[in-house]
This record gives sequence, structure tokens and C-alpha cells, in this order.
Amino acid sequence: MKAGPSQEEIRRHNLGTLLRHVHIGGSTSRAVLADRMGLNRSTILGLVSELASAGLVREELPGDTGRAGRPSLVVRPESDRVYVLAFDVGVDRLAAARIGLGGVFLDRRETPWPHGGFDAGEVAGVLAGFARQMVDTAPESTFCVGVGAAVRGLVRRPDGLVRSAAHIGWEDEEFGELLTRRLGLGLTVAVENEANLGALAEHLRGAGTGCQDLVYLHGDIGIGGGVIVDGQLLGGDGGYGGEIGHMVVNPRGGRTCGCGARGCLESEAGERALLEAARRDPSATGREAVRAVVEAADRGDISARAALHDVGDWLGIGVATLVNVFNPRAVIFGGTLREVFLGSAAQIRSRINSQALAASREHLRLRVGELGDDAVLVGAAELAFSDVLVGPLEALARTGG
Amino acid sequence: MKAGPSQEEIRRHNLGTLLRHVHIGGSTSRAVLADRMGLNRSTILGLVSELASAGLVREELPGDTGRAGRPSLVVRPESDRVYVLAFDVGVDRLAAARIGLGGVFLDRRETPWPHGGFDAGEVAGVLAGFARQMVDTAPESTFCVGVGAAVRGLVRRPDGLVRSAAHIGWEDEEFGELLTRRLGLGLTVAVENEANLGALAEHLRGAGTGCQDLVYLHGDIGIGGGVIVDGQLLGGDGGYGGEIGHMVVNPRGGRTCGCGARGCLESEAGERALLEAARRDPSATGREAVRAVVEAADRGDISARAALHDVGDWLGIGVATLVNVFNPRAVIFGGTLREVFLGSAAQIRSRINSQALAASREHLRLRVGELGDDAVLVGAAELAFSDVLVGPLEALARTGG
Repeated sequence: MKAGPSQEEIRRHNLGTLLRHVHIGGSTSRAVLADRMGLNRSTILGLVSELASAGLVREELPGDTGRAGRPSLVVRPESDRVYVLAFDVGVDRLAAARIGLGGVFLDRRETPWPHGGFDAGEVAGVLAGFARQMVDTAPESTFCVGVGAAVRGLVRRPDGLVRSAAHIGWEDEEFGELLTRRLGLGLTVAVENEANLGALAEHLRGAGTGCQDLVYLHGDIGIGGGVIVDGQLLGGDGGYGGEIGHMVVNPRGGRTCGCGARGCLESEAGERALLEAARRDPSATGREAVRAVVEAADRGDISARAALHDVGDWLGIGVATLVNVFNPRAVIFGGTLREVFLGSAAQIRSRINSQALAASREHLRLRVGELGDDAVLVGAAELAFSDVLVGPLEALARTGG
Repeated sequence: MKAGPSQEEIRRHNLGTLLRHVHIGGSTSRAVLADRMGLNRSTILGLVSELASAGLVREELPGDTGRAGRPSLVVRPESDRVYVLAFDVGVDRLAAARIGLGGVFLDRRETPWPHGGFDAGEVAGVLAGFARQMVDTAPESTFCVGVGAAVRGLVRRPDGLVRSAAHIGWEDEEFGELLTRRLGLGLTVAVENEANLGALAEHLRGAGTGCQDLVYLHGDIGIGGGVIVDGQLLGGDGGYGGEIGHMVVNPRGGRTCGCGARGCLESEAGERALLEAARRDPSATGREAVRAVVEAADRGDISARAALHDVGDWLGIGVATLVNVFNPRAVIFGGTLREVFLGSAAQIRSRINSQALAASREHLRLRVGELGDDAVLVGAAELAFSDVLVGPLEALARTGG
């Protein structure tokens, strides 16, 4: 337990907090910033000047306010000038984006990528190629302050070692270091589990805005999870927390999961289980296939209906446990679980109502993700921005901005 | 997001942090405090003087250090002078203690209490009687700085409303207000779920010392749970988080639980399930009954062995999910789950090894609680001390100390 911060640490904290306000909230007047941060206007003025000198924010007249009189200036993030690179190693695509302060997509690249057998060097090569194109075509006097990457697996946060990523066949892959080297930008790539980043993104900019406690479930070929506890991403002892797809929901009689266990939420309610129950090709996973099942169920297809009922039942069982354990304000369904939720919400709710404690579920909201397929990239960008939001000037000094 | 603290807030934080160091760590030299808090010695001297003037700590020569030369003074908490009252509303006993700063038991009272049908007024009356005896017999110039109470149920933290406590038959019982009134000490009673307090106690003073992420399971007539995430007690949106006993482990085919759901960890692995499987009277719950099953199994009793195997299997399934979700450093078995764990550790470990992800369990320790039946009272005391540890002088001013 450490003593309180020094004056210098407080100054850094205040600069970071002000920057975070405009990064997340967009253009904001100094008066509102003063109010939200509990500081007087002259202190705010000093902080804004310092951030503006560093090229992180600028002051300008707001758009048409619809009110008479001279409007006050607003502080806005230098979205065109200060950016990060975000990468998403998906199970069937590789995506990259250049994202400006304030969360603005400035550029993006994407390529389909075959299932399985991903060579980490090859993946890093493709992403580094995207990065080069995006950095080379960025206007002059712009600069990159961080890099974040999402992987569908268990990631050791400090060094970006991917401990295990069954869906793409990685085991103890030093992906963070590899990508850092390939990029050659002098910036260390921060690597994180894809659903943790989806949770962060929906918490900051999507369906979970304002919720300090939420659970995010991300469906693609597997089921990933991320949990926000009291406003912070749950990491756990080694950073592997939030593996909701591997909750044991059907221990005696469940299917064998890719992780080797039996009856995981992923093996009972993942895309393969849905397609198999709907009597479709279980290897032809993906959003289109999931959507086709939901649409068939809407048209009255009996197998599709039964499949959604069954998968919804397992999801409801898993979510009921999560509600009892976390007492979250929101549970958010992202990735292809968005479609599954829309097709089986009644069954999910019914299970939650019968299995979750009344007090724990009374203010619960079930939501679909608002950021769609971008959630993971948005989260990777937030991870990449984190240094500059903690100590703006120090981060710029390190990155040469 | 607020600005950094003021000088006054930092001073308060530093006083609280220093007090917390000696409260948790016991007598500590100023040099060690300076090192741990990252402050220089003259600042530490000032803080110690202020706390000493307020009667919260004192400086004295340490016991025999075994070294030659003049030993340095140590700062120790005024355990005899500054105390809290802690209460535990158990399912078969009511307990109360007067606990000094530093966590020292100064006095305690306890009475057996019949199962079920607890009248909240009667419970508050018994506890208030204990309090009066303990306060009246406390030496002069001692003073009470807080009161904490544990209840086996879902508690709304801000006002101590017990939303639901099935085992003692309470529903929306204003127990916090009731006990506050009955005590008449001018101190608001802080009420919390018993297993959350057990988790806090084992984290601060027991088997979970040094673990920032842990899960605590508490067995008595039910199974309670408390989770420490990154050093903080998991509360959730309404404060009802950590209801591990109501994880759904056997949704299709499980027993009906007291909460109305089916296949909860509590209904599959609680005392009643154990006694039933061991062909004993399932209503004769309690530590002696559980211990008798474990001892019978040790002697080769086949029903007892099978019962422990089965209960251990369900516990392992539940813990495997908790390991995947929280990636804790430790899982601690307290209350009568201590005995159950000792009798079924092999089965629990086997399930964890087959169901939990390798990375998530690699540094996991399974432990029994070290605080025994006192865990809940110790946790209630920590809850009661929390105000004085956040702002020592302000708390004293409020309590008139």
C-alpha cells in the first residue's frame, strides 16, 4: 500500500483524465470539463494548453449550437493527427485499422484468412504489410502512439505470449514480440484476448456505456468472454480470466470441447453445436451460416427452431450462473452470438428467470453488441491508447510524437 | 473521471494507509513504513505523530530483537483502546465479538440459536444484549469506531437491507437499521453477506494473504461465496455478486435448491446433499455431522466414500468453472467445506485438471481456510474498521473518539 501521489503524479493524472474525457466523450467545453473533473476553470485552462501544445487536443468553435450569442470554445481530440494501429487476428479474417484519438476509424484493411493452421510469422507479415500501407498513406505530421492486437486465445499480457489459441492452432507463440519486430515502429504491441477487448469496447463506446459491471460474450467459431468488474477489465492472476466459453454447463453428458474438457458452454452453445442441431454442416461456421439458421427458424423450420431452443437453453444456463456470480448490470451478446440471441432471447430469458436469484437479476439488461464486427478492433485501439491516456506527455516523449 | 486528489485528500490517504499497514501487519518500524509507503522518514514521523495524538497508534520498544545495540521504536496499533463490534448471524448460532485495531479479539459472546424462523427483532435483541455486556465491561478510555454484521443472505450494502436469506427465513428485512437502532451507539451497522466477509478475512489475515485474486467458498447449511478481484471484494451492480452456491452445475437432472432453481452447486454439494448421499439424516446438518461422514469414509464406509466422491465431483466442476472465469491464485474452502475438501481433495483436483484450462490453473492453489469459524467475525470486524482506515481522523471525529 503506497502513499498518495506526488504533485507531478497528480498533474500527469489530470492531463490523462482530461484527455480521456475528450477521447471518450468527444468535443467538450472547458466549463463541462471543469465540472466533471471537479477542478476550477483556470486549472482546466492550464491542462488544455499543455495538451494542445503537445498536439493532442485543440480548441475550436463548436458546430451550430442552435442558440444565439457567441458560443464557447470546445476542446476536441486531435483525431486526424494522433492515432494507433489496431489488429484483429480472427478465425477467418485478418483485419487492421488506423484509429484516431477519439476512436475515429481513419483507415482499414482486411483480408479473408483460411481456418486453422495459421503460421504466426505469416500472420504477422500480413498485418505488418497492412500497417506499412496505412502508415505510409497517413498525412504528414500525424503520429502513431500505440499498437494493439486481438487474438482468440489466452494471452500473457506483459509480453504478448499467446499461451494457447486452439482455433488457430497456436501454443506458446511469441506473437507480441514477433509482431513488434515485424512492424519495426519502435512501439511494443499490446496483445490481448479478443473477447476481453470486445468487452472493453462495448463498455467504453457501445451497449455497455455507463455500466460499471458487465459481462460480454463473443461468438465466432468459439465463445469468448470478457468481464468488466467495477469499471475494470477482469484479468485474474495471470491475465487469463473471463474464459466464459469454458464454463462447465453440462459436465455429465456434454460434448467434448476443443479445450479437451466436456460440456463447456462453447461446446454446447457454440456455432458448431447450433449448426449440428439444425442439421447443417457443422464445419461451415460463420455469420452467414448462423443467420441462415435464425432465418429458417423464423420461417418455421423445425430443426432450426429446435436448435435455437437448445442453444438458447445452454446460453441461459450459463448466463444465469454469470448473473449469480457477477451480479452484472448488463450481459452483452456480440459476434455471432448477436444473431443467436435475437433468435433465442425468450429461451435465454426463461432460463435466467428460473435459475438466477431475483435480487441479482432485477436490474439486469440483456443487450446485443452495438459495435458489430468492429468491437474487437475498437477494443484493440483502446488498449493501444491506454499509455497515452495514463501519462500523455510521457507517452509522447517515448513515441517521439 | 475525477481529477487527482487535493493535498488534504493525500494527507488523509497517507494517514489511512499507514494505519492500515500496522492494523494488518502489526508492529512496524518507521523505517519499514517509509520504505513500504514510498515516503521519506520525516513525513512518516509526522503521520505517526498525528495518529498517536489521536490515540490510534503508539510507539514503543519492540520485544527482544535478539540483536545487540539500541533497537528502533516500532509503531503499533492501539489494540486495547480502539475497537469495533462484529456480529455473525449464523444458521445455528449468534456470535458477537469486540475486536481491537490490529484484529485482536478482546471479548466474545456466543449462543446456539435454532434453525429457521428467526425473528429479526429477536436476533437484534440478543446481539444488542451481547454488545451491551461487552461495551460495559470494556476498560475506560476505550472506544468503538465501527460495527459490522454478517448475514447468510443477499444484502443491499448501502442500508443493510437483507433482500433474501432463505436459510433463516428473511425477505426484505431491514436488519441494518433495526440493529443500528437496538444498539443505540450512534454508529451505523454495516451489514454484509457472510461469505463475502469470510473472503475478505482470509484475504487479509488468513490463507489468502498476498493473493490479489481469490475465490472463497463457505459451507454451512448452504454454500456461500466471496470473490476477491485484484485485491477488492467483488460486489457487482447491486452488491449481490459472489453467489457461488447458486452456480448452475447440474441444470438437467439436478435437485431443487432452496432458491427455487435446479442443480445449483449448493443443492448438489451442500451439507444436505452430502448427508443424503451418505445415507444419514439430511436435516441433521452441522460440522459434527460433516466430520462424521469424513471420518466414516476414512474408516472405509462405502456410502460415506461414495458421498464424498460425488460431492467432491460437483465441487470440482464448480471450481473448474470459477478457475476459467476468474483465473484466481487461490481457491479457499471454509466453514464445513473445509472438512469436505479434506475428504474429497483428490476428486476435486481431478475435475479441475480435466475441466479447467491449463494456463488458468497453472499457479492455482487449493487451500483450506486458516481462520476457522472466526473467519466471518474477522471479516465483519474488517468491514467495521474500513471507515477508520480510509480517513482515520474524520472517522474519529464522527464517532466521538
